[in-house]
Amino acid sequence: MVTDTYLLFEKERPTPPYIRVTANSLKRFVKEVFVALGVREGDAEVVADVLVTADLMGVSSHGVQRVERYVAGIECGAVNIDPEMRLAVDSGAVGVLDADNGLGHVAALKAMMIAIEKAGQFGAGVILVRRSHHYGIAGYYALKAVERGMIGISMTNSESLVAYIGTVERYLGTNPIAFAAPRRHPPPLLYDGALSVVPVGKIEVYGKVGKEVPAGWVIGSNGEILQGDARRIHEAIKKREAAILPLGGYLEEFGGHKGSGLALMVDVLCGVLSGAAWGSHVGYTTVKNANVGHTLIALDISKFMELGEFYDRLEHMVSDIKSLRKSPWAENIWIPGEKAWLTMQTRLKIGIPLHLNIAEGLKKIASKVGVKFDVEVVEEHLT
Amino acid sequence: MVTDTYLLFEKERPTPPYIRVTANSLKRFVKEVFVALGVREGDAEVVADVLVTADLMGVSSHGVQRVERYVAGIECGAVNIDPEMRLAVDSGAVGVLDADNGLGHVAALKAMMIAIEKAGQFGAGVILVRRSHHYGIAGYYALKAVERGMIGISMTNSESLVAYIGTVERYLGTNPIAFAAPRRHPPPLLYDGALSVVPVGKIEVYGKVGKEVPAGWVIGSNGEILQGDARRIHEAIKKREAAILPLGGYLEEFGGHKGSGLALMVDVLCGVLSGAAWGSHVGYTTVKNANVGHTLIALDISKFMELGEFYDRLEHMVSDIKSLRKSPWAENIWIPGEKAWLTMQTRLKIGIPLHLNIAEGLKKIASKVGVKFDVEVVEEHLT
Repeated sequence: MVTDTYLLFEKERPTPPYIRVTANSLKRFVKEVFVALGVREGDAEVVADVLVTADLMGVSSHGVQRVERYVAGIECGAVNIDPEMRLAVDSGAVGVLDADNGLGHVAALKAMMIAIEKAGQFGAGVILVRRSHHYGIAGYYALKAVERGMIGISMTNSESLVAYIGTVERYLGTNPIAFAAPRRHPPPLLYDGALSVVPVGKIEVYGKVGKEVPAGWVIGSNGEILQGDARRIHEAIKKREAAILPLGGYLEEFGGHKGSGLALMVDVLCGVLSGAAWGSHVGYTTVKNANVGHTLIALDISKFMELGEFYDRLEHMVSDIKSLRKSPWAENIWIPGEKAWLTMQTRLKIGIPLHLNIAEGLKKIASKVGVKFDVEVVEEHLT
Repeated sequence: MVTDTYLLFEKERPTPPYIRVTANSLKRFVKEVFVALGVREGDAEVVADVLVTADLMGVSSHGVQRVERYVAGIECGAVNIDPEMRLAVDSGAVGVLDADNGLGHVAALKAMMIAIEKAGQFGAGVILVRRSHHYGIAGYYALKAVERGMIGISMTNSESLVAYIGTVERYLGTNPIAFAAPRRHPPPLLYDGALSVVPVGKIEVYGKVGKEVPAGWVIGSNGEILQGDARRIHEAIKKREAAILPLGGYLEEFGGHKGSGLALMVDVLCGVLSGAAWGSHVGYTTVKNANVGHTLIALDISKFMELGEFYDRLEHMVSDIKSLRKSPWAENIWIPGEKAWLTMQTRLKIGIPLHLNIAEGLKKIASKVGVKFDVEVVEEHLT
C-alpha cells in the first residue's frame, strides 16, 4: 500500500485564520518547552509525541492546544517533573504503577510497555496506574501494543464532567476506551471514544466557531436539556451548572444507562481498583494529588493464533464492512481509525494546521519559558 | 443487610394473564426437559440455572421463554449434546476453549471457571470461546467471578442484528458487555448491556403488548428511521429489511460510531481472535456450526489491593452516586445490577411470573419430550 496514492483527507477541517507547520518542528518545539520547565528530556519527548500525534490525527482538542494546561500543572507544582514511578504491585500478568504525580503521558506509556512485556510472557498484561495526571489521547498507548503485533486497550478516568444516569450533576469523567488491533497493512484498527455523547472539547470548539449545541448533549442542573449557544453552555459546564450526558443520553429508553454504566466500569478499573481517585474526586491537571487513574492492557495475538491468520480474519471482516449497504447520508463507510490515519498521512505531507489563537498561545508560552517559537511554517491561511 | 426489609420490587412488570411459579420448580422442570433430550445432567443444570436466573432478574426476554430456541437447536442437530470441550490454547493467563458446538451456557461457564483459576495464579485470566452457541445473559458468568471475590467481565458476539454506523443492514451482533464487581454486602455491582440501542427482545415484547417503537431504535434498508407498530418492525428485522441501531443511534453527532465501534471491539475479541465466526457469519442457535464466540475475563482483586480496601472504596463510590442530585423524571438513582437484584429477591419470595403463552409453550415442549410440566404455581393472575 503506497500512501502517496491516498487523496488528501482531513477528518477535521481547519478554521481560518491558521498556519500549517511541519509535525517535526512542532514536536521539537513542544519538547523544548517541557525541557525548559525542567522535565527530563525523554519524558518531554513522550509528551510532545502524544500531543503532536493528536494533531496529526485530527483530534486538535487533545493536541498542542493543551500544552498550556500541562505547563500550568507543572508551574503550580501539581505535576511532579521529577517523579519516581514504580510498580507498587507486580504480580504475574498484572501490576499497578504509582506515577508519583508525574505526567500522565509518561506514566501511561511506561505502563503499556510493561503490559506488553507481560503479555509476551503470559499472553495478557493488565497494568493499572494511580497518582497520575491527564494522559492525552487514549489511543496513543493502545497503538504501542499494535507496533508489537499485539492488541492494545487503554482507558482512563478524568475530571468529572458527565452526569450519571438519572442525575443532573457532573460526577463521571468522560472515561474513554481505546482499542487497537494490528492489520497486515496500515491503518491499524483504532477505536478511541469517550463514554459521554461528546467530549467537552467539542463543545468548546463549537463555541469558538459559533456552532449550536444540539439537544441531547448537555443537561442543566434542574434537569433541563440545554441547546443552542455553545459558548454559554460551555460556561455553564465549567461553573458546574450543567453536565455532559452519557453516551445514549438522559433516558434509559435510548440507552443512557449503558453509556453511564460503561463509564462506571472504566472508573471501577482505573479509579477504584488501581488505588487512584474516582468520580468527582479526580482532579484537573492543576490540582495537587489529582490522582487520575488509567488501565493499560495488552493481548499477545500470537498466543491465540498465528498472526497471519489473525490478519486474514481481520481483513475479511474489514472487507465485509466495506461492502455493506451504505446509508443515504453517509459519505463513506469508515473502519475505526481510518479517518485519523488518513488525516495523519495528509498532515505529514502538508503540515499541521494551527489556528492563529493557538499559535499565539504557544508563542506566549515560548517567551515565558525562554525558548524560541521556531516552528517551520509551510502555509499561511489567514482569511 | 436483611433482605426481608426490602419492599417488593420488579424491574419488569408482568403482563396478564400470567401465573407465578417457584424458581426451584421451574429450574427443575427446565433441567428435566434438557435431560430428556439427552443433555448430560450437569449441563442441563447449568442451562436451567442461567435461564431461570434471567427470569429472576427480570430479564424475561432471556429467560425460560428461550427454552424453545435451545430445544430446536438440539432437535435439528445444530447443538451438540455430547460435546468434547477442550482448551485448544492454554498459555499462561490466556486460553481458547473449543466448545465443539455444545450449549453456550455450558461453554461460557467452563471458560469463566478457567479464567478464575488463571486469575488466582496470574492476577488476570482471559479465556476466549469458539464454536459455541448463544449463552443467554452475559452477566451470569461475570457473577461467577464475583462469588470468588474477583471482578468478572463477559462478552459475546451473536447473530447479526445491528447496523454498523453509516450502513443500513444487519451486520453486527448486539454484542453485550457484562461487568461485575463484588461488594461487601449484596447486591454486587453488575452492569450488563447490549451495544445496540435496545435488545431485539424488547422490540418483540413491545409487539406482544402493543407498545410503539420510538424513532431511533431501528433503521430500514433504505435508510428510513422506522417507528410505530412494533410487530411490523420486528417482522421487518426478521426479514432483514431493517436493522437495530447501535447505541448512540444512526449519526456520529450522538455517538452512533461509539456504539458501533464498541460492538466491533467485542466482535474482534470474541469472533476474530478466538477463531469463532464474526459479524453476519455468526449463526443462530438452529444453524449448524453457528460458531458463536465469547470472551470471559477474571481479575483477582486481592492481587491489586486488600479486598477490604476495595470494598471500602467501592462503597464510597456507591454512596457518592446515591447522593447525587436526582433528575426530575427519575424515580430513583440506581447502581447497575440493583434493580435486577431486588427483582430476584422479590421473585424468590413471590414467584416468577410466566405469561400464559409462555407457560403453554413450555407445556407443549414438555409433552413433546415426555416430561411433566409440574411447576409449582403460587399465584394466578388471569385477567
